[in-house]
Amino acid sequence: MALIDQNSSGVFVISVTPFDEGGAIDWDSLDRVVDFYFEKGATGLTVLGMMGEAPKMTQTESVAIVKRVLARAGGRPIVVGVSAPGLAAIGELTAQVMDLGAAGVMVAPPGSLNTDPAIHRYYGQVVTQIGDAVPVVLQDFPLSTKVQISDEILQRIIVDYPSIKMVKHEDWPGLNKISRIRAAEAAGQRRVSILCGNGGLFLPEEMARGADGAMTGFGFPEMLVNVVRLMTAGEEAKAQDLFDAHLPLIRYETQPGLGLAVRKHMLARRGAIASPALRAPGAGLDARAVTEVDRLMARLQTRLKELN
Amino acid sequence: MALIDQNSSGVFVISVTPFDEGGAIDWDSLDRVVDFYFEKGATGLTVLGMMGEAPKMTQTESVAIVKRVLARAGGRPIVVGVSAPGLAAIGELTAQVMDLGAAGVMVAPPGSLNTDPAIHRYYGQVVTQIGDAVPVVLQDFPLSTKVQISDEILQRIIVDYPSIKMVKHEDWPGLNKISRIRAAEAAGQRRVSILCGNGGLFLPEEMARGADGAMTGFGFPEMLVNVVRLMTAGEEAKAQDLFDAHLPLIRYETQPGLGLAVRKHMLARRGAIASPALRAPGAGLDARAVTEVDRLMARLQTRLKELN
Amino acid sequence: MALIDQNSSGVFVISVTPFDEGGAIDWDSLDRVVDFYFEKGATGLTVLGMMGEAPKMTQTESVAIVKRVLARAGGRPIVVGVSAPGLAAIGELTAQVMDLGAAGVMVAPPGSLNTDPAIHRYYGQVVTQIGDAVPVVLQDFPLSTKVQISDEILQRIIVDYPSIKMVKHEDWPGLNKISRIRAAEAAGQRRVSILCGNGGLFLPEEMARGADGAMTGFGFPEMLVNVVRLMTAGEEAKAQDLFDAHLPLIRYETQPGLGLAVRKHMLARRGAIASPALRAPGAGLDARAVTEVDRLMARLQTRLKELN
Amino acid sequence: MALIDQNSSGVFVISVTPFDEGGAIDWDSLDRVVDFYFEKGATGLTVLGMMGEAPKMTQTESVAIVKRVLARAGGRPIVVGVSAPGLAAIGELTAQVMDLGAAGVMVAPPGSLNTDPAIHRYYGQVVTQIGDAVPVVLQDFPLSTKVQISDEILQRIIVDYPSIKMVKHEDWPGLNKISRIRAAEAAGQRRVSILCGNGGLFLPEEMARGADGAMTGFGFPEMLVNVVRLMTAGEEAKAQDLFDAHLPLIRYETQPGLGLAVRKHMLARRGAIASPALRAPGAGLDARAVTEVDRLMARLQTRLKELN
Repeated sequence: MALIDQNSSGVFVISVTPFDEGGAIDWDSLDRVVDFYFEKGATGLTVLGMMGEAPKMTQTESVAIVKRVLARAGGRPIVVGVSAPGLAAIGELTAQVMDLGAAGVMVAPPGSLNTDPAIHRYYGQVVTQIGDAVPVVLQDFPLSTKVQISDEILQRIIVDYPSIKMVKHEDWPGLNKISRIRAAEAAGQRRVSILCGNGGLFLPEEMARGADGAMTGFGFPEMLVNVVRLMTAGEEAKAQDLFDAHLPLIRYETQPGLGLAVRKHMLARRGAIASPALRAPGAGLDARAVTEVDRLMARLQTRLKELN
Repeated sequence: MALIDQNSSGVFVISVTPFDEGGAIDWDSLDRVVDFYFEKGATGLTVLGMMGEAPKMTQTESVAIVKRVLARAGGRPIVVGVSAPGLAAIGELTAQVMDLGAAGVMVAPPGSLNTDPAIHRYYGQVVTQIGDAVPVVLQDFPLSTKVQISDEILQRIIVDYPSIKMVKHEDWPGLNKISRIRAAEAAGQRRVSILCGNGGLFLPEEMARGADGAMTGFGFPEMLVNVVRLMTAGEEAKAQDLFDAHLPLIRYETQPGLGLAVRKHMLARRGAIASPALRAPGAGLDARAVTEVDRLMARLQTRLKELN
Repeated sequence: MALIDQNSSGVFVISVTPFDEGGAIDWDSLDRVVDFYFEKGATGLTVLGMMGEAPKMTQTESVAIVKRVLARAGGRPIVVGVSAPGLAAIGELTAQVMDLGAAGVMVAPPGSLNTDPAIHRYYGQVVTQIGDAVPVVLQDFPLSTKVQISDEILQRIIVDYPSIKMVKHEDWPGLNKISRIRAAEAAGQRRVSILCGNGGLFLPEEMARGADGAMTGFGFPEMLVNVVRLMTAGEEAKAQDLFDAHLPLIRYETQPGLGLAVRKHMLARRGAIASPALRAPGAGLDARAVTEVDRLMARLQTRLKELN
Repeated sequence: MALIDQNSSGVFVISVTPFDEGGAIDWDSLDRVVDFYFEKGATGLTVLGMMGEAPKMTQTESVAIVKRVLARAGGRPIVVGVSAPGLAAIGELTAQVMDLGAAGVMVAPPGSLNTDPAIHRYYGQVVTQIGDAVPVVLQDFPLSTKVQISDEILQRIIVDYPSIKMVKHEDWPGLNKISRIRAAEAAGQRRVSILCGNGGLFLPEEMARGADGAMTGFGFPEMLVNVVRLMTAGEEAKAQDLFDAHLPLIRYETQPGLGLAVRKHMLARRGAIASPALRAPGAGLDARAVTEVDRLMARLQTRLKELN
């Protein structure tokens, strides 16, 4: 199967993991949501990300999910989140999923890293552990990881570890980080693919500054796909109009600790998964929040009609 | 001068502190921005908040700012942020500003508080230090303070310290927190005023759940005023339309560490302050960000015309 | 096999996991160090703790280590650390090790818990996940977990979850916590066993305040055993003399991120394990530190002779 | 008055600030404790450090304390802690105390700094604010500040800001940091003075690795003075014997949040201050802890007699 590389672009949706109300993996819904993402135009998927509830899986479940999604994806690229507290576990899972046909692995820095050299050293250890033939996505998400990666050390990591092919960019604020990476490349640094996260909250600006697309989730993944497409085609105003229409919902989804429940609710409402249930300790939306999201979904439909 | 109380409502704008390019306080602009806020419909102001660059002032400057704003405010209520690492400094500044005519003081919890009882104890110490005749705004802003205040301990604080008249609500996610405070009041707990922060990012939902208004800043404070007014009048759809129109800019302002520069840029563009300069170590917007904000401001004008 | 209960006492040594220089588990040394701990008087062992390098193991290795230690322990109680980012993984490992004959499991709170109710809720979820027939050791180690457990919430947890039989006490400072738990018990609260950690740094005071023993590691575990024995026998001065003799080394071992390398160096010097190697990303002692530890070990021998 | 420089050595005691039971500054005790420190052999003092309860003072009190101590010190060097949330406050206090005759100022990094370049930039801003004629002590104390300064960035700061003359070294573990600074100097980097903190917990090893002395506090400051003197004279065994005798108390004092109460209790017992009271929100020792410290103080006297 094709691997991701420094020119990968488009939208890699961070896939949810569907559960039934009892907390068991809902394999049919997993198939269905994979289909749904690709029908809406996704280039690829990323499984076992934070919003895929990865840390709640057992190792056996993790591998089974990757297998199932790969089988369903029909050859389209699947990136697998392999972040774990220890290098041995990262190495073991990486070997398994690359054997199965994954397109690359994603690694976020553990929260214990507290200096620039420690972050740099860590990615060196990861690359040593998994081998430099495996394409790596560096997930740069300080709000969640508590690890702030400076521009300087990110560039040293990029220069020193060529198997890091992509940055999942979700520093916040991070628009300048994109501009600085592209400026460094203009000055001769090797290229990395930049796919943006944060639920797409800054996607138009990120594309304008040189991002290659998005790697994030949202209840309406077609928005991500179309904004990336329109921005790539130079249709900035249309892209922003479409983005703005979805923004009240994007914003509602950015609530930390609640966003995934919002996203799963939208996906369930749209028929992409059977139940919006999260595995414990996650909790679903209460009635009041359901009303709020449903109201915003209805307004979105009205607004989309106005735009057409 | 009137004090804030448990029924205070409307919009208390978190005032910026204008500086010239050299970092000196621009007193004329301070007068001008006070006028601007009130012309746009503010009920009151809050000075020396985080977004007022309070920690960058000397104590002498802090008092001078309060004096100047009180003189300009013509009797409208001015809340003063007095958060400081030590109780003695909080006590001293509180005594000074209440003597000058402030309507109350705002206190955020210091980052060292790491258990519920420690948070509770702290507010007890604050009330003892400043005396229970001074109305207190409890600022609940975990993203910035790193102190998470649980519903349970917030309710114990409200019950035990009656001089805490208001919660500046900017937990995130925090919609349920509002619902729970109002539910507790329905069950007999004493009332507190809830004014919402976070740049207004969830203002329509917050008002619908029982907030009394907003205490936050934004380059277009009239949006805050009008959303609060429309929601109070039951015109939810109109409120949301107006809110949605500003949302691309609100979102742009939520970038931590960058938001104040965005806000000051908008205020300077609108003539409310002479310079968008921040005092060091703050930095202004670079050229690229200026372009992005200006584009969003232009789009806002277009959208507002469509709505009228 | 016997389970731990609320009256468990003595010394449960936190076992190291021996590796060879290449990072592979050294099974012979694992047998040898188990023997060593029991020869020095340990009541039981705790495996897969933080200082057992648990997060660096794969799940398969974790189970294999438990099996090996149980086989070697000859029926003496083995507690297993099962802390993991997700409840499913905790449940799976717990079921496996309890089936194999473990005496109980140890669970530290994940760093994401940031309010008292969240900590309480978490232990409820753990007990639900693993079943209330499994004896649980609550590891209270804020310096490492970043989770501060207040006296109040610890007592609510003890009251609400009877299968939590033991507190591994290593809050720092935490002497009062022991006194308060014992005071609550005197007032009718159910008893828990308290075994102390922190490398034994406050062991004499902890025993005097009502601790039942130690659950920690040190290059000279016989010190832990003898201090607990002497304190229990009321021979406070002898206990303190013995403790003081080891204190320069205990102190040297308290260096965060370095302590395990110090401990393994001492164990290797004493023949309890073949190599002091840590698994990556851990690093061993440099030459200078080796000299410092060796000097302190030599001084200890001299001092012990003076005492006899 | 003489300023500190890159060759400053000896013991700068971190002075406590004595209060009466009501929380008012006890000026007579301040004089007395200054005399006490110098009688015990201190080279200089550092006032308004964390253990001087600096954040609990008003600005007026801070300046008054500096004046009083300078008047009493008879020309011996006094360093002043000026850490504050904002640069303007740092600048103002620095100007005041240097005018009064301070020997230099001490600045710890604010907790908001989360990358190596941010830390570097901050010290640049501090030097710009206060002017490069003022000698600066960089306080490197991650356990308290939450800011981890890597060896690499510390060296860049030393190279780029020549007015930083001294490092108050209390990283933990930090022995290698001393060795690396001295190695860099051997390779041509400009010299800095290194005075060690952490209550002296690693003082013998720190001196052996090239520290110039101590800048910390302890109830028995003569231990710091004599260990530094003996180590400088090459009498390592004697130094370590003396150190070991005090170690049970040093250890007891390392309890975070409790250590200052322990220290003040010892100073009050020894007649150096009238009351062990801390200013709120600090709390004194309870009866049980008093008993524990008194017991250790008595044991110390016995042990010192054995050594002589």
